[in-house]
This record gives sequence, structure tokens and C-alpha cells, in this order.
Amino acid sequence: MTDNKDLQSAFSAHSSPDKQADCTLTVDQLRAFGIDLLTSAGASEQEAIGVVDELVSADAAGHPSHGIMRLTQYVPFLRTGFIQAGASLAVIRESPQVDVFDGQFGFGQILMRELREIAYGKASQHGSYTAFGRNFCHVGRLGSYVEDAVQNGFLAMMMVNVNGAARVAPYGTDQPRLGTNPICIGMPYRDRAIMVDTTTCVTAEGKLRIAIQNGRRVPDGQIVDTDGRPTNDPADFYSDPTGAILPMGGDVAYKGSGLAIMVEMMCGILSGAGFGRHDVATGTNGIWFHLVELDHVIDKKQYAEQTETFVEYIKQSRLADDTVEVMLPGETEYRRAESAQADGIRIAGGTWHQLLMLASEFGVQVPDHGPS
Amino acid sequence: MTDNKDLQSAFSAHSSPDKQADCTLTVDQLRAFGIDLLTSAGASEQEAIGVVDELVSADAAGHPSHGIMRLTQYVPFLRTGFIQAGASLAVIRESPQVDVFDGQFGFGQILMRELREIAYGKASQHGSYTAFGRNFCHVGRLGSYVEDAVQNGFLAMMMVNVNGAARVAPYGTDQPRLGTNPICIGMPYRDRAIMVDTTTCVTAEGKLRIAIQNGRRVPDGQIVDTDGRPTNDPADFYSDPTGAILPMGGDVAYKGSGLAIMVEMMCGILSGAGFGRHDVATGTNGIWFHLVELDHVIDKKQYAEQTETFVEYIKQSRLADDTVEVMLPGETEYRRAESAQADGIRIAGGTWHQLLMLASEFGVQVPDHGPS
Repeated sequence: MTDNKDLQSAFSAHSSPDKQADCTLTVDQLRAFGIDLLTSAGASEQEAIGVVDELVSADAAGHPSHGIMRLTQYVPFLRTGFIQAGASLAVIRESPQVDVFDGQFGFGQILMRELREIAYGKASQHGSYTAFGRNFCHVGRLGSYVEDAVQNGFLAMMMVNVNGAARVAPYGTDQPRLGTNPICIGMPYRDRAIMVDTTTCVTAEGKLRIAIQNGRRVPDGQIVDTDGRPTNDPADFYSDPTGAILPMGGDVAYKGSGLAIMVEMMCGILSGAGFGRHDVATGTNGIWFHLVELDHVIDKKQYAEQTETFVEYIKQSRLADDTVEVMLPGETEYRRAESAQADGIRIAGGTWHQLLMLASEFGVQVPDHGPS
Repeated sequence: MTDNKDLQSAFSAHSSPDKQADCTLTVDQLRAFGIDLLTSAGASEQEAIGVVDELVSADAAGHPSHGIMRLTQYVPFLRTGFIQAGASLAVIRESPQVDVFDGQFGFGQILMRELREIAYGKASQHGSYTAFGRNFCHVGRLGSYVEDAVQNGFLAMMMVNVNGAARVAPYGTDQPRLGTNPICIGMPYRDRAIMVDTTTCVTAEGKLRIAIQNGRRVPDGQIVDTDGRPTNDPADFYSDPTGAILPMGGDVAYKGSGLAIMVEMMCGILSGAGFGRHDVATGTNGIWFHLVELDHVIDKKQYAEQTETFVEYIKQSRLADDTVEVMLPGETEYRRAESAQADGIRIAGGTWHQLLMLASEFGVQVPDHGPS
């Protein structure tokens, strides 16, 4: 598979947004439907559960770019053998605190679940732990793994490079050479995480797909077309060769570009994953995952008190015009996830259309669903 | 000392930029002059050398905000006893891979030199190492410590919170609640580092001082005044109460704000340094310093080859309009440092005026210097 074909196909599938109306499923419905689809396509039930739980939790958190939409990518990848069902971590280098793994092109979500068990054990024993990983298929939303680690008592950090064909232009250039290269950092607060999970560019590529699905233009300063011209039409990104997403920072985008370059080196070079590859699918990841067990660093009571004080201090900052509330990093996602439990998850028409096609092909029963 | 008095004084000292002309000194002249001043003010010779070497290297790298200008802050801090000459690291928690230190308000530069010796030893032995530090007086330019670690064979990462009175408004607010909270990451490339060293806001506070010294306005989107109104006049920042610097990101400043909040928690809460304090001087730092020894992760030859390929790939990206060359993160600083060796370091008139006043007070000889 070439990357551009993959993108072209994603684009054409999503470029007729009004063919199919949006719909709303309950979390349980979406989960069951996803698991049925993925097992029908060749994943084991255990794998399908692991993968779909991650996708549905991303949808619930309000990030459809990392949600069930991805099945329309994973199923073809299973077919072509790019995703290796059943693959697990191979140890490349091992030490008590620093490991390097090869994911052998298994489902990223499954590999990350395997990795975190190793990581929790070693970090608990030694105080900290770092893993580098290569050849992980798309791991999805980093926040999910970081949040789980936070719930287990760690300061957790994760970066991935996106080592398939590049999407982001280094500062000073207008051609794609870097991945969207997210950085995620989380720490505990009460029973949840305060957590930033952000690409080092101005928008995730999945959000461009979503914009196309919804027939929307994108704001100024996000993308340039294949000739390097600024554009607001997300379709301009999906030309051949593609346009480019700009690094985070606006007037000071050398900051986002610099961070993206370091993520590319940490996750792409140190793991052996590589960068800007055209022999792997969009979204394939190189991994850096780092934990510090908090009990090695600070007393629990002191931590809880300091965190309460900090949150109050941030929350009481005077609101800017047009703002109704100060949100902590990750707080929006928690609220959306709570709403999703009550109100269900809205699936965009373009995604729903593709899921229905897969269901028809595999003879999977489509859940009853309400309109959006 | 209250923080606002400190700021007011810095502001008034710098607000008459044309009282004294800029001047240019050689690196050696500036270094000797700085060491004389600091020893006269009460630092030991060894301390003065350590501190001034860091300041001069920041000036040479083109960051006067972290350069010799800081002596005009450190000398009064020595006098009032806020900076504790001779202080060294006190161990708060210790383990083979994760330590917590109290810097006891020593010179940040000296404490970081002490810390890195511990860090290199432990990271070499165990593969990785993490330190948290509190009560470090201003450590200066993070890139200096990260670069040194890179030269010693490590992936190096450093963040600090700036736990004196806050400067940066959390996203959605217009009051200062966060430090400028820089993130620095470096890895080796040939005989130097590829290294990002960036605040998580749109500009460092020191750059506002420099803008005042040079009689310049600042670009849109950097600061708001005490009432939260956007302004281009850096003097508006130094009111009482102060204005605020905006987080990095422009339209997506929740990204910079989220990163800044995590830095505040990692470096302020986990180290015990705190945040938004009014009992410590501007620039006092909480520390997170993390190393991974590269030999634990990747073969040297493979690393060198991959890095060459990556650099070539980035450098060959098509130039955007108005760009003449693609620069790696940190490359500008290397070039400036080379120029500084040849052409000397230009000192802004406002800074020079203050240094002359100190020299006069302490009877320190002023070096011969050319005009700018």
C-alpha cells in the first residue's frame, strides 16, 4: 500500500458528507458493533475488545479522529496483512529501567496494553521506567495510556512519532517532513488525571478528515496546499503530493517545530521506527513512554493538598472575554465522556456510511440507532 | 523583597535606554568583568566562575535575557541574602534512579553543575535517571545543561517552573498564574546537540525587559495589560499588579497552556518548589531533569547514520517564502556563539549602565570596550 493511495481513499470516502446522515449510538451499542466488525475481519475477540475499547473511549472523549472511524482504516490493514493480528512485543534491548521493543506491526492498542504491564512493574520497583517502541500500528489516543498510568500512581509521559509519510512542515518550510508527533503528560488529581495530550502541530490530520466529513473549512494558519499556499479547504491537504500541516505556535511556530523534531528523533530514531516512511501505513507509531512512581518522589498527603491548592489557584484566574470557565487540561474530555455515557456517541455520516458498508460485507448486524 | 518591587526596579533601571550607548566586549573581557563583579559582591571565585560562564554563554548564544544582565539581579539578591553563596544540594529523597533535592537557595548554575555530576553517574550506571529539585535560584538557560549532557552521551530533558510570582495567563484567562515554564530536549548530532529550548508561552519575560531596553514594542498576541487588554507596549506588563504573557499557540493556545500547567505540576508540586510564590525572587526555579544514556538504547553507528539521514531530510524541505535556510533547533545559537567568539558580545546600553554602576560601587575595573 502506498500512503497516498491510503489518503486518497480516506478522502474520497469522506468527501460526500451528505450521503448518509449522522447517527447516535449508545456506548455499549457502538462497542458491540465495533467488536463484531473487527472479529469478523480477522482479529481475535480479545484483540477486538482491546482495540475497540480504545476507539470508543476516544469517541466518548470527543476525539472522533481517534475513534471508531479508524476501523475503516484498520480493517483494510488487516486484509492486506499490514496489521499483524496476534503480534506481541519483541524485546530488542532490555534493562531494569530502559527497554526497547519491536511491536511487529501488531495493533498499537494491544501492544500498549502489553507494554504498560511491563512498565508498571518496573517503574514500581525502580522508581522510574522508560520504553522505546518501534513498529507499533496506530496506538490511537495517547491520553488513554497516560490516564491509566496516572490512575496507577505514576507521573506518566508519552510521545509518539508518526513515522508513515510526513504531514507537518518544519518551521521555515512548506513541505511535509514531520509527523503530527503528539506529547502527552499526566498527573493525578483526585480520582482522575490532569493531562495534556497535544500534537506539536496546529491540528491533527484526523481533524482534517472530520472537517471534510462535516463539510467545514479549517481556520487560518493550519494548512498549506501542495504548492505551499495557505488554504482553508481541508481537501487541499489531500492532494498528491499532499499539502502540509503547520507546526504549533503561530508567530512562534519554531517552538512547535522544534518540539516536533525532538519527538521525531526520540521516537523515530532511538526506537528504530524511522521517519517519513512510505512503506508503512498512515499512523504507524514510534513510541517513547516514561513513568515515575510518585511514591518515590512525594508524600501522598502533601501531593493531594498541593494539587488542590494549585487547581483552585488556576480555576480562580480572571476569565478572559468569551470564556465561561477555566478548564484544566483533559477536563473537557472527562465531561464529554460523562455525557457520552448518558447521551450516546454521535457518529458522523461519512464514518457511519463506511461502517455500514463493512457490516454489509461481513454480515454483521447493525445496531438500532437514533438520528443525531 | 516583594516580587513587584523587584520588577519595578528592573523596569525603571531599563526604561531609559538611551542614557548609555550599547557596547561590545570580547567573550574573555565580559567573563573577567563578570567574575570580578560577582566575587566583589560576595561569591567565591569558584562560584563566580561557574555562574558567569553560564551567563556569558547565554549572551554568546544570543539570549541576553539569560545573560550578564542577570548580574544586576543576582548582586542585590546576594546582598539581601536571598541567594545563599556556598549553598549546595541537600538530599530530600534518594534512590538509584530518582532523587529529590533541595538547593537551599544557592546559585542555580552551581547547583545544576553539582546535580549533573550525580545525574551522569547514575544514568550511566542504570540507563536513566530523573531528578526533581526545589529552591534553586535562577538556573539560567536550560540549554546549557542539556547540551552538556548531550555531549556526554545522553538524551537529556529538562523543565523548570518559575515559581516566583506568576507571569503567564492560563488559557481562557487574562491574569498571570503560571511561570514561563520552559521545556528543553536535546540529542547528539555530530559534535553538538540538536536541541529545543523553549518557554511554553509566546515570549520569555527577559525578552520584555530587552524590548524595553531597546525601546521596542512587542508583536501582537504576546501580552495583556493589568486589565487583560491586549497591548504591544512591554512597559504595560510591568504595572502593579502586572499584566500577563499569553501561552504558546496563538489560536490553539490551550496547547501551550496545557504544557505549562504540566510543567508547573512536575517541577513545582513534585519537587516541593511550589508555584506563584511571592516570598521568592523572580526566576527562582523548580527542576525536572531527566537523562537516558543512549548506549542503553541504540548502537552508536546506527544512531549516527539515522541522524545524518534525518538532518538531510529536514534540511532539504522546500523553503517557505521569506526563508533562506532551514535551521535545526539550537543551530542559530551555535552560529551566534561562533560569531561571539570572533566579534565579541554586544551589551545593551541599559544593562551596561547598570554594570558600570555596580563596578563603581565595588571598585571593579571596567574593561576597555568598543562601541556597538
